[in-house]
Formats: sequence, C-alpha cells, structure tokens
Amino acid sequence: METKKNEGTKRPGSAPGSLIFMGEKKVDKVRIRTFRWNADQCEEQEYNDVGDLPDSIGKKDTWWINIDGLHDPALLARVGERFGIHSLVLEDILNTRQRPKVDDYDEYLFAVLKMLEFDSSTKKVIQEQLSLILLPNVVLSFQERTGVVFDILRERIRSQESRIRRKKSDYFFYRIIDTIVDRYFRTLEEFGEMQEDLEEEVMEKPNRNLLRQIQEQKRQMVFLRRAVWPVREMVSTLLREETKLVTDSTRTYLRDVHDHTIQVLDTIEGFRDTVAGMLDIYLSSASNRMNEVMKTLTIMASIFIPLTFVAGIYGMNFNPESSPFNMPELNWVLGYPFVLGLMGGIAAVMVIYFRKKDWI
Amino acid sequence: METKKNEGTKRPGSAPGSLIFMGEKKVDKVRIRTFRWNADQCEEQEYNDVGDLPDSIGKKDTWWINIDGLHDPALLARVGERFGIHSLVLEDILNTRQRPKVDDYDEYLFAVLKMLEFDSSTKKVIQEQLSLILLPNVVLSFQERTGVVFDILRERIRSQESRIRRKKSDYFFYRIIDTIVDRYFRTLEEFGEMQEDLEEEVMEKPNRNLLRQIQEQKRQMVFLRRAVWPVREMVSTLLREETKLVTDSTRTYLRDVHDHTIQVLDTIEGFRDTVAGMLDIYLSSASNRMNEVMKTLTIMASIFIPLTFVAGIYGMNFNPESSPFNMPELNWVLGYPFVLGLMGGIAAVMVIYFRKKDWI
Amino acid sequence: METKKNEGTKRPGSAPGSLIFMGEKKVDKVRIRTFRWNADQCEEQEYNDVGDLPDSIGKKDTWWINIDGLHDPALLARVGERFGIHSLVLEDILNTRQRPKVDDYDEYLFAVLKMLEFDSSTKKVIQEQLSLILLPNVVLSFQERTGVVFDILRERIRSQESRIRRKKSDYFFYRIIDTIVDRYFRTLEEFGEMQEDLEEEVMEKPNRNLLRQIQEQKRQMVFLRRAVWPVREMVSTLLREETKLVTDSTRTYLRDVHDHTIQVLDTIEGFRDTVAGMLDIYLSSASNRMNEVMKTLTIMASIFIPLTFVAGIYGMNFNPESSPFNMPELNWVLGYPFVLGLMGGIAAVMVIYFRKKDWI
Amino acid sequence: METKKNEGTKRPGSAPGSLIFMGEKKVDKVRIRTFRWNADQCEEQEYNDVGDLPDSIGKKDTWWINIDGLHDPALLARVGERFGIHSLVLEDILNTRQRPKVDDYDEYLFAVLKMLEFDSSTKKVIQEQLSLILLPNVVLSFQERTGVVFDILRERIRSQESRIRRKKSDYFFYRIIDTIVDRYFRTLEEFGEMQEDLEEEVMEKPNRNLLRQIQEQKRQMVFLRRAVWPVREMVSTLLREETKLVTDSTRTYLRDVHDHTIQVLDTIEGFRDTVAGMLDIYLSSASNRMNEVMKTLTIMASIFIPLTFVAGIYGMNFNPESSPFNMPELNWVLGYPFVLGLMGGIAAVMVIYFRKKDWI
Amino acid sequence: METKKNEGTKRPGSAPGSLIFMGEKKVDKVRIRTFRWNADQCEEQEYNDVGDLPDSIGKKDTWWINIDGLHDPALLARVGERFGIHSLVLEDILNTRQRPKVDDYDEYLFAVLKMLEFDSSTKKVIQEQLSLILLPNVVLSFQERTGVVFDILRERIRSQESRIRRKKSDYFFYRIIDTIVDRYFRTLEEFGEMQEDLEEEVMEKPNRNLLRQIQEQKRQMVFLRRAVWPVREMVSTLLREETKLVTDSTRTYLRDVHDHTIQVLDTIEGFRDTVAGMLDIYLSSASNRMNEVMKTLTIMASIFIPLTFVAGIYGMNFNPESSPFNMPELNWVLGYPFVLGLMGGIAAVMVIYFRKKDWI
Repeated sequence: METKKNEGTKRPGSAPGSLIFMGEKKVDKVRIRTFRWNADQCEEQEYNDVGDLPDSIGKKDTWWINIDGLHDPALLARVGERFGIHSLVLEDILNTRQRPKVDDYDEYLFAVLKMLEFDSSTKKVIQEQLSLILLPNVVLSFQERTGVVFDILRERIRSQESRIRRKKSDYFFYRIIDTIVDRYFRTLEEFGEMQEDLEEEVMEKPNRNLLRQIQEQKRQMVFLRRAVWPVREMVSTLLREETKLVTDSTRTYLRDVHDHTIQVLDTIEGFRDTVAGMLDIYLSSASNRMNEVMKTLTIMASIFIPLTFVAGIYGMNFNPESSPFNMPELNWVLGYPFVLGLMGGIAAVMVIYFRKKDWI
Repeated sequence: METKKNEGTKRPGSAPGSLIFMGEKKVDKVRIRTFRWNADQCEEQEYNDVGDLPDSIGKKDTWWINIDGLHDPALLARVGERFGIHSLVLEDILNTRQRPKVDDYDEYLFAVLKMLEFDSSTKKVIQEQLSLILLPNVVLSFQERTGVVFDILRERIRSQESRIRRKKSDYFFYRIIDTIVDRYFRTLEEFGEMQEDLEEEVMEKPNRNLLRQIQEQKRQMVFLRRAVWPVREMVSTLLREETKLVTDSTRTYLRDVHDHTIQVLDTIEGFRDTVAGMLDIYLSSASNRMNEVMKTLTIMASIFIPLTFVAGIYGMNFNPESSPFNMPELNWVLGYPFVLGLMGGIAAVMVIYFRKKDWI
Repeated sequence: METKKNEGTKRPGSAPGSLIFMGEKKVDKVRIRTFRWNADQCEEQEYNDVGDLPDSIGKKDTWWINIDGLHDPALLARVGERFGIHSLVLEDILNTRQRPKVDDYDEYLFAVLKMLEFDSSTKKVIQEQLSLILLPNVVLSFQERTGVVFDILRERIRSQESRIRRKKSDYFFYRIIDTIVDRYFRTLEEFGEMQEDLEEEVMEKPNRNLLRQIQEQKRQMVFLRRAVWPVREMVSTLLREETKLVTDSTRTYLRDVHDHTIQVLDTIEGFRDTVAGMLDIYLSSASNRMNEVMKTLTIMASIFIPLTFVAGIYGMNFNPESSPFNMPELNWVLGYPFVLGLMGGIAAVMVIYFRKKDWI
Repeated sequence: METKKNEGTKRPGSAPGSLIFMGEKKVDKVRIRTFRWNADQCEEQEYNDVGDLPDSIGKKDTWWINIDGLHDPALLARVGERFGIHSLVLEDILNTRQRPKVDDYDEYLFAVLKMLEFDSSTKKVIQEQLSLILLPNVVLSFQERTGVVFDILRERIRSQESRIRRKKSDYFFYRIIDTIVDRYFRTLEEFGEMQEDLEEEVMEKPNRNLLRQIQEQKRQMVFLRRAVWPVREMVSTLLREETKLVTDSTRTYLRDVHDHTIQVLDTIEGFRDTVAGMLDIYLSSASNRMNEVMKTLTIMASIFIPLTFVAGIYGMNFNPESSPFNMPELNWVLGYPFVLGLMGGIAAVMVIYFRKKDWI
Repeated sequence: METKKNEGTKRPGSAPGSLIFMGEKKVDKVRIRTFRWNADQCEEQEYNDVGDLPDSIGKKDTWWINIDGLHDPALLARVGERFGIHSLVLEDILNTRQRPKVDDYDEYLFAVLKMLEFDSSTKKVIQEQLSLILLPNVVLSFQERTGVVFDILRERIRSQESRIRRKKSDYFFYRIIDTIVDRYFRTLEEFGEMQEDLEEEVMEKPNRNLLRQIQEQKRQMVFLRRAVWPVREMVSTLLREETKLVTDSTRTYLRDVHDHTIQVLDTIEGFRDTVAGMLDIYLSSASNRMNEVMKTLTIMASIFIPLTFVAGIYGMNFNPESSPFNMPELNWVLGYPFVLGLMGGIAAVMVIYFRKKDWI
C-alpha cells in the first residue's frame, strides 16, 4: 500500500538529485505534447525528444509542454537542462510518492499535486502524481500516463473565447490546479455513495468482514486527507508568497481554489465522522445480537425448567401404599390432567411475564 | 445530503466564472426589490429587470437591492456588469453550496452567509444561502427565495426612528448579518428542545432506531458547526480588515455580532456533548437490559435446578426391597411431605440469597 | 437550562442597542449605592435615581457606584446618558446571558464577569452576571441582585489602612475582579466535595440514576469552563491592552489574578478528568455485576447438572430382571448410598475446581 | 488532595499582598542560612533573623540566602523590606499551592518551582514548593522545610574547582533550577518502576481495587504534568525575556534545562499512555474472564443436557407389556450397557467438538 | 526501556558539563577516522588520539572526523579543547538519551540525531545516537559504535564525480542528515511489514498475548515519533536560522530533507491508526467469540430442555389404573414411537427456527 511502503524513495546514500525513476512504468513511450497560444492563434504539436523543441519557447506567446510518462530519466534530465531546473526538482518529479507542495525557485515555481480517482471495483481511491513547473510564459506538466482529465482543458485552449487565450502562463497554471481540485468533488461524490451503501449494510447485517472494510475506510480517509491537505497549504503559499511569477489577478482566482480545497477537506472530515459512527453502529449491533441470543435462552430455560421440575416431582417413586401422604395425587382420577393444567398455567404465567418485559 | 454531494460545484474544466446555477430552483420568478432611504424619506420599489434600475443608485442616499431567486444566470450577469462585480463573485452567488466567507475586492465587499431554520417534521436544520455585496451607499442581497426573515428589517427601514435611517450602507450591511445571526438562536432553541426529547427517549426505552437518530444528530452538529464557524471567522475578518467600506462606528457593532457567533458556537458545542453523552447512555442502557435478562435466567435456573435434582433423586429406581439402605425414604409415612418441605426450604434459601444480592 | 436556551438574547430584527431586560427579575427595587473615598475620608450614600447623583462624580476622589437590579431599562438608559456609555454596552448589561469579556471603548473599559455559587440542594453551580465599567476615578458595577460577596470589599474601603483608599479606580476595578475570582475557589471546593461523594457512590453501588448524574456533571463542567475561561482571556487582554485607564502598578496585580484564573481552570480540568473517570468506573462496575451474575449461574448449573444426570441414570426403567447387565446397581445392598456418595464426590470436585478458579 | 482543595489560596476580599501563611507548618523554627563566595573564598553562616544579615550583601561577592520554613509571615515581611520585594511576591511565597512561574520585576526575578519526591508507601508523588528570587549578586531561596536536595549544591560551592565559584548569581540561580529538574528524573524513574509493577498486576489478576489505582494513577499524571509543564514555560520565558539579570552565558546553560524539562514531559506523556493502556487491559481482562465463565457453563451444560435427556427417555413409564413398540430396549439383555455407551459417545462427540473450537 | 528510565541523565547536583559517559559501552576502542577532500583529491586516515590530528584541519579542504565509541570522556574533552566546543555540547554527546535537536553556537552548529534500525527478533526499533558538529570546513561526527550506515557515504566521497567533493562542509553535514533520514524509510518499511502480520493475527486468532503486543506497538509508535518529530523541527530550524555556516545552496537541499521527515511522520501516523484499529478489532473479536459461545449454549439448551421436559412428563408415575385419564398414553400401542416422533418434531422446529435466525 502506498502509505506503508516507500520503495519510491531514493536509496540511502545515493546522491540527492540522482535521477532514478521510482514507481511503476505506466506508459510505453514518453509523449511530449506542446500547446502554444496567444489571443489570436493556438498551435498544437507533438515531439519525440526535448532536443526537437523550438528555441522560441518562453520568448513570446504562452506555452504548455505536457510530458506523459516518467520512466525515462535521461529525457527528464535533458528537460531540466533545457529549462534550467534544479536536480532536486527533477528527482521529485520522478519520485511518484511525493507529498503535494509548491517550492519557489525564484526563476520558476515547482508544484506537485495528486489526481484522485475512485475505483469502484476495489472501493479505493487511486492517486496519480502531477508535477507542474511555472516559468515565465511556459507551463511544464509531468504525468505518469496520458489521462483524460486534461482533455477539457485542451478544448478550452482551442476555443478562441476562452479566457485562457487572453491570459498568461500563471493563469493557465491556476487553471490546471483548479481542474484537478474540481475533479476531487466528483471522486468524493462516488466515494460518498459507496460509503452510504456500506453504512446501510453495517446497520442491517453486521459481520466480521464489514469490520475489515470499516478499518479499510479509515485508512482511505487518512490517505485522502494526506493527498488534499497539503494542496490547501500549497495554495495558501501561492496566495501569500511574494513571487513575481503569479500576478495579482491570478491570485484572485487562486483564492477560489483555496475555498474549494477547504470544501473538499470538510467533506473528507464528514466522511471520517461517518466511518467513526459506523464502528459505533457495528459494535452496538453486535451487542444487540448477543442480547437477542441471551433472551432466547432465557425465555426457553425459564419456561421449561419449572415445568421439568413439576414433571420431576411426579416421577418420584414415593410409595403411595406406605402412607396416605405419599403422593396421593398419583392415584387421583384427574391427577394427570391436573398436572398438565398446572404446567400449562406456569408456562402461561412465564409467557405473560416476558410479554410484559417486552422480550417477546 | 448537502455535506456529501457536491453537485453544486462547477464541472471540472468548465471556465471559472462561467455562470451556471447549481441548486434547486426554489421560486418561479426572480424578484428585484429596492429600498432607498435617507434620514427623511424611504422609498420602496419592485423591478422586473436590472436594466430598469435607476441610474442614481449609489450616488446619494442608501440603497438596498434585494434579489430573490437565483435561477436566471443572465440576469445575474447583468447585475454583475451594472455594479462591476467580478465573475468569480457571481459564480459564488449561484453556487448555493458556498462556505460562509467574506472577500474584499477593494471596491466592494462580498459576503456569503447561511440562514438556518429548524424543520420540526424532519428534525433537521435546513440552510439557505444569502449573498451580500457592500458597495458605497449600496447593499446588494441575493437569496434563493423570498423569505420572512427580512420582513422585520423592512419594517425598521420604514420607521423614521430607526437608526438604520440615519446610518450608511455599512451599518445596514451589519444589520443584515446581525439579523441572521440572531435568528440562529431561535433555530438552536428549537433544536435543543427536540434534542432533550430525544435524550429522554434514549434514557427510557433505547432501541436501534434511536441509534440511527443519534448518528443523524451527530451529523447535524457537524453541519451546524460548518455553517456557523466560518461566520465567526468572517466577522473577525471584517473587524481586522483595513477596508474603507466599513466605518469604525459600525465595527463596534460588528464586535457585538462576533460575541453572538461565539455564543452560538458554544451552544452547538454543548449540543455535541449532549449527543456524545446520548451514545454513552444508549450503550449503557443496552448493557443494562442484558444484565436484567441474565439475572432473570440466573434466578430461574438457580432456584429450579437444585429442586429438579432433588426430584431426580427420588425418581431413582433403587429397590427398597433389596436392602434397607436403598431409599427407605420412599416408604416413610411422611417421605413425600418431607421432600416437598426440603424443596421449599431450598427455594427459600435461594430467594433470600438473591434478595441479599439485591437481584430481586 | 442556561446553556441551552438563549431566550435572553434580543429578538432578531429588533434594533441593536434597544434596551430590553432579558432575564428574571430578581429584586423588587433597583438600588443605587455609592462610595466616595480618598486616602483620608470615605463616604457612603444610597440614591433612588440617577438624576440624584452629585455632579462631582469623577472629578476628584474615587467613586464606586453599585447598581443592584437590572429590570429597569429606563434607569439604565439614564445611567448610560449620564456617563456617556454606548448603547451596545447597556444592552450587554441587560442581557444576563453575556459571555465574560472586556471591551475597550477608549473613554472607558467595559467588563462582564460571572459570579459562581454552588447550590448544594440541586448540586449545581449557579451563576450571576456582574458588569463593570471603569471610567477615570469611577467604577460602575451592575448586579442582578444585592449579594453578600461585596460586603467584605465595603469593609475594606471603610478601613483607613486599606490599600484601596490610597489607590485609584483602576486598582478598585482590579479588586472587584480579584474578589470574584477568589470566590471561585470556594465554589469549586464545595463542588469538589460533592463530586468526591458521587465518585464514592458510583464505586459502591452503581445504578442508572448515577449515569444521569454523571451526564449532568459533565454539563456542569462545560458550564463552569465557559464561565471561567473567558475571564482568563479578559485578564490577558487587560494585561496586554494599551489602555491608559489601567496603570502599570495595577497591571502587576492583574498578573496575580491571571495566575488565579489559570489555577481555577486547572481545577476544573481536574474535575473533568474525574467525571470522565467516573463513567469508566460506572461502566466497569456494570460489567463487574454482570460477571457476578454469570458466575452464580455457572456455578449452580455446573454443580447440579451432572448430579441431575446421575439421578436421571438411576431413574431409567431398564428391567434388571431381563438381564444381569440391566442396572444391577438398583438391587445392590449399598446401591443408594454409593450413588449419593458419587454425587457428593462430583459436587466436591466442582466446588474445588471453582475455588481454584477463584470464582467462589 | 492538592489538586482539589485550594484552601491555600487567600480568602476572597482579604487584601492582596496580605501575608497569611497557607499550608502546613513543616518545621519548628525558621532557619536562615547564607553562603557568600567568590573565586577565592567561600563563607557559610546561619542567622536567627533578617536583621542580623550583614549590610554587605549584594555589594560584592555572590550571596545565597536560604530560608527553610515559611510559617513566620512577619520574618518574611522583613525579608521583603530588606530586599525591596513586592508584597504580591511575598504572598506567592507563602501560598504553597502556587503554580510554577517566573515573574520579572525589573530589579529582580521571582521564580516558583515544585520539588517532586516519590513516596513509595503511598505510591504518590509529593511536591514541595521552592521560591527563588534573583537579585544582582544575590539568590534568595525559600523552602517549606530543610531538605537534602541542596546538600550536593552546598558541596559544590565549597569546592574551589566548582564553576559556581567563578560565576555570578544568575549562574547559581540556574544551578538551583537545574538541580531540581534533574531530581525529577529520579522521581520519575521510581514512579515508572511502580507503574510497571501495577501494569503486570493488571495483566495477571485484574480486580476492582486496581481500577481505583488506575484512576489514581491518572490523577497523578495530571498532577505531575501540572507541576512540570509550567517549568518548561518558565525556562522558555527566561530564555526569551530581555532581563539584564540573566547573562547570555547563563542562557546557554538554561537551554540545557529547557531540553531536560521537555524530556521530563515526554516521560510523563509516556506514563499517561501506559495508564490509558492499563485501562484497556483491565477492561479486556474483565471481558476475558467473563468469556471463560461462559465457556465453562456452555461446556458443562452442552455435555450434560443431552445425556440427561437420554436418561429421561429411559425413565419414561411406557408399558412394554402393552405393545412391542413400547420401549422394548428396557428388556433387552444389553439395553443398559448400550445406553451407557450411547451416552459416552455423545459426551465424546461434544468434547471433540469443543476441542476443535479450541474452548478446552 | 529507553522511554522510562533515564539513567543516562547526569546526577542531580553534579556540575553541568561534567563529562560522564551515560550509556552502554558498545565498542572496545575509540576509533578516530578522518577524511580530507577537495575536488581533486581525497585522503583517508585513522588516528589513535586527538593529539595526532594534523594542525591543517579546517584551514583548507573539507574534513570529516568520525569518532566511533563514546566511553572515553577524557578523549572527548581533548576533542572539545582542540575545536573549541562548549562543555555542555560534550556532555550532550556523552548522554546517549539526548533528544534530537540542533543548537547554534555561532562558531559551530551542534546537531543530535537518532539512527533507527528495526530488530526483527524483538520486533522493536533500536535507536543509536549520532552527534554532529559543523565547523567551517570541518564536520565532526560521534557515534556509539562503528556502523555500516556511513559506508555508502564513504564510497561517495572517494568517487571523484560525487557532488560532495565539489561542495563544502555544510553540504556534507546535510548529506549525513539526509542519509540518516532516508534510512528511516527502510526501517519503517520493515516495521510496517511486521505490523501487517500482527494485524492479520489479531483478525484471525485473538488472544491475550496479542493484547500485550498491541500495547507494545503503541509504545513503539510513541518511541518512533519522539525520535523523528524533533528531526523535523531541527531541519526547520536550520532552514530558518540565520547561521552563516549553512549556505543558501545547501538550504535548498535541506528543504528536501524536511519533506522527507514529514513523509516519515505521516507514515508513523498511519501506523498509529493501524495500532488503534487493531485494538478495536481485538475487542470486537473477543466479543464475537463470546457471541459464538453463547449461541452454542443457547442452541443446545433450547433444543434439549423441551425434549427433556417431554421425557419428564412420561416419567411421571400417575397410576393409569386409578383412572382412564391418568396417562393412558403409557399403554397405547404406539405411545413410545409417538413420543419419540413428538420429540423429533420439537427438535426440528427449533433447528429450523435457529436456521432462520442465521445462528446455525
């Protein structure tokens, strides 16, 4: 599990900034896709290598360079060289177990985010890392694999009416973050539905397997919180930070993202309460069942034990012939019916008593 | 439930500030009502569209423009244009799942609040969003539907003696917030009464349905806290913030609202403790009932098992004729009465023992 | 209960600062008592109305004007006018559900405090509100009814040796706060004794009624904390605040009050732990009792069930005459004594076993 | 108990700074012992009264004036006069229920500390108050009674090699605090050993008396924390504070004390966890025992109930002579052995079943 | 256990800075190994005593002086003298129970760290203390014994390509910290695996021994947190601190270490949740088992008690000859088969009932 094993972290003693990809290879080939736009035009291109990127990048217009696939450290090293990126940043991009954060390297901003998707088959949330670098006029993005999340953003760039076209790279940087955070809502919604089902099940038929699931849910909550909480910090930092790379106009928009992350965290907090409540319900249900078992035993035993005692009485072998006091009932004409009636009476009394106690 | 589904949030990838109404349509027609007043006069008007609003707004006197109904984004866009409101603000007004907050846009203040009403049929608190914009001389308010909360405020404006008439828009802005926060007290009072009933019920006859209700109460608490807590932050911000829109005289009044929000939060905190206590009582009641069941079983069994044993003894078929040691009691004259007496004695001893133990 | 119902708060929509008394009328007539003193003299007076107060107040010497009874808003309004007090302050004085606080209005300081008394009959702490206004050379105090707490202070003023006589109004203002906070210790002491008794009872004979009491105690703790915690904040504010009304020499004394409030809060915290511990003891006692019940049942059943079985064996009707293998014991000379001995042996074994298990 | 009753606090209404000793009189006679030293010499003296103290104090060399016994307020008042100490300080010295703190009175520093000793007979930690006043060249210390803790310090002063001899009063002030804090470690060690024994006992044979002890331990933890936590704050204050009385060189040493108090608090925190764990173990042990009781009952009942039933069958009085279907087994040659065998078989099956379930 | 006994702390009263080794002697002989390097060369040396160290140290090139073994205070005192180290620092180096921290002594930085290794045999994490002193051009390191952790670092120094060779002592100082923190990940991974096994065991077969282990795990968590949390603070301090000893370029790298410590703490936090969850599972499993025991008893008793009662009926000795109502069944031709059938029927009904209840 991601939260337990940190195989993604570089080995102790290996030089910091040495580029070793730590994670699963999720795509076959690294894809470099670029968008270049200004208010009037928009141009898309796909390249095989960093060396093929035009020299004009960053000089005019706004550029988005998206790299899908992280398993080629050499290519990444060339990207680093081309754009003057610190080796620690490159290392962080390759390490897909990074915590969300933003680092200000004066010439550029480096941000790490998690994209969250709910996998309904495993009932777990899957996360994927997105690294962003904001340079003047350029946004670099690094993903583990080609995803669909950005397709809508691409549509927006192509549309001449889009505000993206009229704004600079810092606005586009914000738009990527915004897209990711908005995506969280859908993920949480799916998660919430699953959780409601689980709660219903715990209420209706508690079993030990559910206890496992509740524990798993708890872990998921921690996992989600850990992915989202730093995003909030990150946006706060961007709002506060004295970086020239983000304009005041974009900061207004970032305030909106900030509100959204708080809403996401509130929702997660609500889920945590629900999970904690589930455990209460589970335990109380278990004790309820025990109660029912005990009641059944008590009712059965309390009714039949006195009856069996009466039967035992008349099974005694006192000799009626030795004395008129010795069980004369045995020879009564209505002795047997009388005893059966007595037993029925005792049983009736017990049943009435338990009814009154509301046990049956 | 509101805290779980966030369908009200804009779709990922859609442009920020694109105006899509997210919520239920609660009124048929958008109503625009205006109040204009100064110390001497007060004029009320109702308009059909933004275009009909007079040009004099904001130039002199104090204006309150109240818009009921949020399902017409186009109208709202025109309002935005008319008063120079940022598109993000308009988006926030339309999104009825907003968290209470205040944003300072230099030329105006934007505030979001929740109006809370206790619905006694569902035993839940219903919230409705109110958005406020404070401009110099103008207060804009946006509600989901026409409510009765503001009727008292309208009365106050009409009264010549009212302090509102002598003060500016920032004071009226405070008065709206104050009215809403004061309303919280009544809502909480009704909520508290319901909770006391519930507590009584948990104490008297705990059942599984109550467990569900307790869980629901917990969620309501989180829900209330989430609606009120940010209001406190919001007022703190207004007290601190260096905005020219709020005068020092009004800040003194806002300090009063601040105290009230703290009182509201204290009350909610008290409710939380009560709910937590209810769970303790519920669990302890359940264990109490189990105890009672076990006691009944133990008493019944402990009394009759020895008696049945005695009866069993004298049901043995040892042949008194084979030997004088073989159950001579069976032929005694008072054998049967003696055994019955023995049994009565045993039963009496057991009863006395249980009495001493305080079990019966 | 005070913490639940806030009927004392002004109605929504009513103008802020409108003077409506919210609370129970606790005295028949409002009393205005004044003290005027300097190092040499001390003069006491009682007035019927504010208008009768001499004009010299605040000009020289130190004045203490104490008003008992808050049910006459008109009188209070006149006090406000006479001393230039903000209408919000007057509203706060009338609202006896106020949270302790200090507000700095430049020309004067306004402080609200709670006086706490332990009522041994209801086992609850009763609170009464005290409002203080510190003006240069004047201290105004407003109480719900005439109490005994201030009698000692009055004695001190009358005594020529008292430091009060040589100091200004800010020192007297401190002395009132100090007197109230010191009173908390006695209240808590009485409370603590009651709690110890309760703990003993929970330990000795837990019953459902105690559970209610424990819950009530919990609420009392919250109630106490809520009354004292803001006092600490209040004193901190006075220590920090840049008000000219409090001299540095008096601040040294306020530091002492600050230490005392921390001690009071520590004590309350200790009570909370005790209450939490009581619940643990209660629950564990309940489970202990269950254990005892179960043990009794188990011992009774485990001893008699095997004996009854043995008796059952020899109650079988196998025909000894059909075969020598058919229960020849029935015709043995010592058959019956042997069986009785066997039963005694089994019972002895069981008893020894339970002894070893430490169950009896 | 110290944490509950605050009888040591001055009566409400009594003048602040009025010197009334609040505590138990622990020594018969107040002892005033002085040390005077510089790098070359060291002189010890014992005086009966403050008046006898030489005038040279504080003018040159370093002086330590230690006063054992606090029951003579008059003497203390004279000390206060002699060294110019504020009456609130003197009051704090007499009030042995003081919270540890440091107050800066510009001309001197006043510090209160708790000395902690573990009393193995009551299994409690006893605290004693130490008050320190740091003047230029003089350290005053006030103790409830003559203790052994300072003997080692006295030895150090006497030794010419000691760094104390070469340093000023602020260093000696640090050394006293350091000695007290170091003593905490030993106290905690003894406490920890006792706690381990208790934990072992809870694990091995839980009984109700242990529950009481666990609750007592909890209180002790709060008690310890309350004694040590403020010491940390106190040292922090000394490190931060802009007082000229403590030199930078001594501050380096105080940093060391600060680390030690954190270590002490960590240890106490660890103890708290242990106590919380004990309650878990206690409760789980109780439920374990219940389980064992229930298992015994279940095994006994489940084995013998079926056997008794079989015996009951053959105790029925159907008349074999009326019909060949009526219990022909009774007349079989091997009827009795067969039934005994059947019973043995049933018992064996049950035993095997319970073995498999791991219950026996 | 380390967290309980603090025998490693100096005795109260002993002079601060007096060098007494507190800990176990882990090596026979103190080893002094030096590395000297610049971009071109690298030289290793081993010395027997501090006096043998060349005078050129610190003047040019970068030096790493590593001392394994702390049991020779005299040697350490000479090191202190040679490099001008404060006696408190030397004391801290010798006290192997130090809390991780960094102290800025202007001329040098002193840092304490814990190296953590998971010992799979005891299932505990072992810690070893590492002390670092950063001087201009020199890094001093003090370990309890020669370990393997630094071997990789030594390899890196020897390699001409290594960034260490081109950087100064502050970078090497960072590299040591980085190596230790990276090592934490492996330790935690091993720990996590062990914990997963334990969780599985708790789920499958809960027993009292596991409860002990869970408690032990809890303590380990506290222990780990206490070792790592201060490292984070420490690095924060280095990032903030205005020391000239650490260059801005190295600070960028330290930011990376900071991120890593947060990740480590997140992982530990996750472990804590897992342990807390284990206790829930354990308790719930125990109650589950009880439930199963109770069910078995209830099923056995509920089936056989009615049957035994029926057998008891026909074991009564009513005389069929006295009256035709007296148990005529006894003489029926099919009386016995009829009763056996009745019993079978009753048993079947009970079994079906329990099946329906899902108990069998």
